[in-house]
Formats: sequence, structure tokens, C-alpha cells
Amino acid sequence: MMKNVISAVCIKCGAEHEAIPTITTCPKCGGILDIKYDYHYIRKNLTKEKLADRKDASMWRYMEFLPVSGESKVRKLRVGMSPFYEVPRLAEMLGIRRLYVKDDGINPTASLKDRASAMAVVKAEEAGVSTIACSSTGNAASSLAGNAAAAGFETYIFVPERAPKGKVAQLMMFGANVISVRGSYEDTFELSKEAIERWGWYNRNAAINPYLMEGKKTVALEIAEQLNWEMPDYIAISVGDGCTIGGLWKGLKDLYAAGFIDRLPRIISVQAEGCCPLNRSIQEGKDWYPMEENTLADSIAVGVPRNPDKALNAIRESDGIPVNVSDEEILSAMKTLGSAGIFAEPAGAAGTAGLKKAVGLGLIPADASVVSVVTGSGLKDVANAMKAAGEPISIEPDMALLLEAFRNKGLK
Amino acid sequence: MMKNVISAVCIKCGAEHEAIPTITTCPKCGGILDIKYDYHYIRKNLTKEKLADRKDASMWRYMEFLPVSGESKVRKLRVGMSPFYEVPRLAEMLGIRRLYVKDDGINPTASLKDRASAMAVVKAEEAGVSTIACSSTGNAASSLAGNAAAAGFETYIFVPERAPKGKVAQLMMFGANVISVRGSYEDTFELSKEAIERWGWYNRNAAINPYLMEGKKTVALEIAEQLNWEMPDYIAISVGDGCTIGGLWKGLKDLYAAGFIDRLPRIISVQAEGCCPLNRSIQEGKDWYPMEENTLADSIAVGVPRNPDKALNAIRESDGIPVNVSDEEILSAMKTLGSAGIFAEPAGAAGTAGLKKAVGLGLIPADASVVSVVTGSGLKDVANAMKAAGEPISIEPDMALLLEAFRNKGLK
Repeated sequence: MMKNVISAVCIKCGAEHEAIPTITTCPKCGGILDIKYDYHYIRKNLTKEKLADRKDASMWRYMEFLPVSGESKVRKLRVGMSPFYEVPRLAEMLGIRRLYVKDDGINPTASLKDRASAMAVVKAEEAGVSTIACSSTGNAASSLAGNAAAAGFETYIFVPERAPKGKVAQLMMFGANVISVRGSYEDTFELSKEAIERWGWYNRNAAINPYLMEGKKTVALEIAEQLNWEMPDYIAISVGDGCTIGGLWKGLKDLYAAGFIDRLPRIISVQAEGCCPLNRSIQEGKDWYPMEENTLADSIAVGVPRNPDKALNAIRESDGIPVNVSDEEILSAMKTLGSAGIFAEPAGAAGTAGLKKAVGLGLIPADASVVSVVTGSGLKDVANAMKAAGEPISIEPDMALLLEAFRNKGLK
Repeated sequence: MMKNVISAVCIKCGAEHEAIPTITTCPKCGGILDIKYDYHYIRKNLTKEKLADRKDASMWRYMEFLPVSGESKVRKLRVGMSPFYEVPRLAEMLGIRRLYVKDDGINPTASLKDRASAMAVVKAEEAGVSTIACSSTGNAASSLAGNAAAAGFETYIFVPERAPKGKVAQLMMFGANVISVRGSYEDTFELSKEAIERWGWYNRNAAINPYLMEGKKTVALEIAEQLNWEMPDYIAISVGDGCTIGGLWKGLKDLYAAGFIDRLPRIISVQAEGCCPLNRSIQEGKDWYPMEENTLADSIAVGVPRNPDKALNAIRESDGIPVNVSDEEILSAMKTLGSAGIFAEPAGAAGTAGLKKAVGLGLIPADASVVSVVTGSGLKDVANAMKAAGEPISIEPDMALLLEAFRNKGLK
């Protein structure tokens, strides 16, 4: 029994359903569901002061904002409360007043997806199911594998064959049953859906399972708390499937509704130029339609987004700014973040790339304060990191050779 | 002025020197120095209760135990306070009463070395130097690059050419000047030493700079606090250069001397069979001598350890247990940790491999409680992770093929 949750509402037909642990899409119309809270209850049971005193340095510190029936007994990895940095040098470089980076690469399996997977494991436990499945471009997969392994649950994971080796190695290491599908993300998703229905596994496909976005929204709760509830003007985030931006926005709206923040930032929605069906929809003022997946940022290479409605709502409702970036701009943003000690995977740096571009285009004023969310670690995709980083000086162990190499590079 | 620090004592000749920021080895005899504290001062200024109330979720929460002159203004990554897990399933699998894993792969640059590098940056700042250099098998390098980048400091980093690509990419990305040396770790170290002397860079070679071990010791402080000051019977850790085990032991001794813990655990010192000069010295009862570097665990492939004395002291003083493990045992331990949701690099899993072996050899009683320290993330060395993990099922997107593949694997 969740005292803080009222229902699961369909964002398409508006029908309200009981928020049982296994609910996925709307039983009436097939639409995507949204978890509806009793904000009065939250307000009564949680204050900023109470939160400040909590020792739990994980996403579960926000229990009153989460759709769970109580303290789960399942063994959990420590997900969330990732580092939050102010980076004045980068702010100056980009030409804005204040820039913060939320580094969600620092999570147990090195991406923001851990927030959704941790939630999936807890909800699977509530549902009494101990096998969980998903399809993923990689990060959702490895995070599910890791979080489920910690809990002792079995996983079946479908990945498109293009997923980087680091991500596949990670989930194999966690003991997942991995199915590499020789096809697109769309093919992968469809096969996983069929298998999940056939065997009754718990479904960790984020677009279909409304609880997962509730896990993801904790990134917004943390940003707010880490900023001492003073909201920035903008939050930049990369967009693929649409669930992460949807979760971010849901978290902000929940905080606003419960009176924890007094204004809502505008969302900078960043997609890759080669795969931007959602931003294109906003920019063209038309319904979205599928697009090819032409970008090295594999985590946001989603030509058929599974959660278009929530993503588009997030952009529209927040008076958001859609920005599309090239692969070169992404690689360059990886170096920019690196120069502040933050190592992001391409999709993780895309938000920063988009921010840089938006500033350059005059879409963001110079006195703006911005949070850029890094959604995954650069260690997940070393091949692309090498593209951005270049090669080291390589010499025999000899001081004369070192001096020569430095001269050639213009060093010292 | 550091009120808590008395001096830097030579562990060879016993001479005491003023603990200035740039001190390295003993000016009298060239021996390695150890930072000596005023435990009375620490006891008077810090209590367990005071600590429990601190919000700082990083290694800097233990300020009274650290050799720094105050709150540094340098921009810092959030190093330390890494996750600490009890893993009952693994304890059962290994045949001991209690097992905890300290996952130091969850640090800004994904290894325990961040603790030393964070300290190096702060001490360089105190010394008024803003260029820092080191040689490293990889992790110290990337951690220095990341932590220095955050602070806006320049770095020169010498790595042996065998360093895994992930580590090199990481430090290139952080904007370090990287020199890849075509030779052994020994060659790399000597060239870096020459260059550091020539240009007066701040020296982040852990064996030579006594402050770095003081950074590393924070892993012991955290373990103690995370266990609510109830010490385990054993702590297992992998050993290469000798600085990490030395730091661990220093932290434990400091806590004991200041009255924060009432007993000292025994250290399980784990090296690779193909490169175990320190353990061999203990096992043979002889002085250590160089050894080849035959192991896939690159971070502990150190044939000429730079900190043999402190490492050997740690093993002897703690009545420690030296254990050497094969590469196969390391890969197997990676899978064991993975099954609990923890992804370690080979050297990071070596501690667990050694613990498993020590239990099998009857060196650890069944009622023991043990902490195993994971020193680095598996994402740092994906090639070896793939060796341990195996390959996924690979099929065209078709349910009939999926059923066939599952049948062949004995699944479902």
C-alpha cells in the first residue's frame, strides 16, 4: 500500500488505474501511464529540514516522492546522490554566468540508468517476480544486470549488436543472459517485448513501465537539493528514447507541486543531428516520425523513440529549447568536460555540446545559470574517447628523446 | 601550519623533518618518510559523534587525520566515501561468516588512486606549484589527470606502453601531457624522476611523496566508519607498488592510536603469482628482489616495487597473510564480484581472489569477518573483462531463433 501514490494515469486518455507493481501501459487505450501523487501527503510527511538530516546518500533518501510501498529488503547497489559540481572555468568558456555539472556517470554501473534499474528491481520484488528483462542500447542493460545481480535476480537482456563492447562486457560480467540482436534498436525492442510476454518476466523497458521514470526523476530531486532548492534557469540533457528527459521533468514538476521549489527551469533538449526525431517534431511543429540512427553517441541513437509523448511534453511544458549537435560537437564537448576532470561518454557529453551550441546561437542569455547533466561515463565507450582525445607522445625511455618530443609539441 | 602533524619521520633512519609541502624522501639517508601525527590533538578535536554529523561525503570529512593546513580552496572532484556493501551470498560462496566489499571503483576516475591524487593536488597548491607529474601503470595517472584538471593544474604523466587503452584515453581526455614510454614500469619511473627534477614539477609518485599515502589511508578511515568502528578480522587488498597496502595500514594504525578503533585487522596481501616480489619476500623470509611482470592485472604488475618497506611492514605488523593468485583465479573473482553487481578490474578483483584462495587453503577460519577492497573499476580494462565474461548469444531478430538459442544454452 503506497500512501503517497493516488493512481497511474494515462497521459493519452486520462483514465486512472490502480498503481499495482506490474502495471505497464493503459489497459484501456494502450497509452503510457504516469504515476500520480498525493502532494498534500508528501508535504505533510517531508520537509527540506527532514531531508537535510537524512544519512542515506542514495536516491532512496526521497522515499516520500517514490512509488514504493516502504523500505525494500532487496539488496541494493548505492545508486544516486552522484557528484554535483560548479565549474566556473567552463561557464566562462561557454559564456554564461553559472554552470553546474551533475555527473551521473558516477553511479554503480556508470550511468543515470541505474536510477531506473534500481527502481525496477524493487518493483519486481513487490510484484513477486525475480526475473527481469529489457532491451537497451546498452546502459539500461548493464544497469539492470548490475542492480539485479546485487539483489540475486535473474535477467534476460536484449541489446542491438552495435552496443559498445564495454557495455556488453559489463553485463555479461554481472551474469545476465544476454541476447545480442543483429538488427536495429527497434528490432531489439520488439523481440524483447515478445519474449517478456511469453515468459511473464518483469518488464524493465522504461517507456512501458511507468515506475522507471519515477526512478529517473530522482536526478531532478538531487539537483534541487544540491542547489539548496534554488533552481537554475536551464537544465541541459541528452535525449534518446525520451524517458530520461521525461523523468527529469516529472521530478521537477513533483517538487514544484509539493512546494519544494518555486520555479521550473527550462529544459534544453539535446539530440544528435543524425538522430533527432523528437527535436525535429518540435522544430517542424509536426508529429514525430522515425529517423535513421546516424550518430556515434550510441545511447541516444534512437530512431523510433519509445516515449515520445512524455519527452515532447517535457520540452513543450518547460518552454524548452531543442538543439541538435553533430558528432564533432559531441567529441569537442567531451574534451571540454574532460578539462574540468569529468569523463563523459558521447551521449553523456551531448547535453553540454547542446548548451555550448545554444549559447553560440544566442538562445541562452549570458546571465543564465545552467545545469548540464552528464548521463554516463566515458569509460563505457573508450573507442570514441580515443577519437576525441588523440594519441599520447610515444618514446623510448631517454631524456634526449623526451626533450625532442616536447620541442616538437611546443611544450616546456 | 598543520596543528595535527608533528613531523615527517624517516622509516629507515628515524630522523624527523619538518613536514613542508614539497618534502619527498629523507634528506639525510634517502629513506621513505612517514607523516607523524599528534594523536592527542586529533582525539581532542574529533569524535565519532562529530564525524557522524558531517555532511561532507568525501575523504575530506576526516580533516583532523589529514596532513593539510586547512580547507583547501582548490576545486576538487568528489573523491572517497565510496560504497560499502555487505555481500552475504558471496560470504556463503566463499565459506566465511561475513564479507563486505569496499567498492573504490566508484570514484571520480574509477579507482582508489583518486585518494592520493586529490591529496597531491591540495599539497601542490600549498607548495605553490601548479604543474604535477607522475609515472604510473595507469590508475594513478588517470586519477592525477582528472583531479588536476578539476583544479586547473597542468600535468605531465609517464605511462608504460602496456597501460590499457581505457586508462590512456581517460587521461588524454583530461588534457594531460602524456608520455607513453616504450619500456617497463621501472624505465617509466626513472624517466619521470629525471624530468621532475629537471623542471621542478610537483611529484605525485606515491612512494616518494609521503602525503599520498595519507590520501590513500582514507579508505581505511571510511571502512571503519562504515562498519560503525567495529573492525573486521581481515582486510584483503591487492598489492603492487606497496603504497596502497601501506596507506591502508597507516589509516588503521592512526585510528587505533587516536582511540577510534580498539583492534587492528590482519591484512591479506594479494599479489599475482607472476609478479609477487613482496609476498615472496615474506614467504621466503628474505629481502625482496625484482621479479618479472607476468600478469594480466596491470595495476599490480610491478616487478620493482617503489614502496617495499611500508608494504612489508604492513604485512608483518598486522600479522598479515600473503597470498599469490593466478590470472585464472583473478578472472574468476571478477565473475564472483560481478554476480553481486560489482564490476572490478583485474587488480581490483585480486583481493577477492586472494581471499577465496586463502579460505580454500584453510588460512582463514570459517567464522571470520572480512572486508575485501576493490581498488578499480572493470570498465578500465574491458579486454580482460571480456575474457572473464564470455560472449553473448547472437541472433537475428526472430522468436524461433531465440527459442533455439535458449534450448542450446539450456535456458528457460
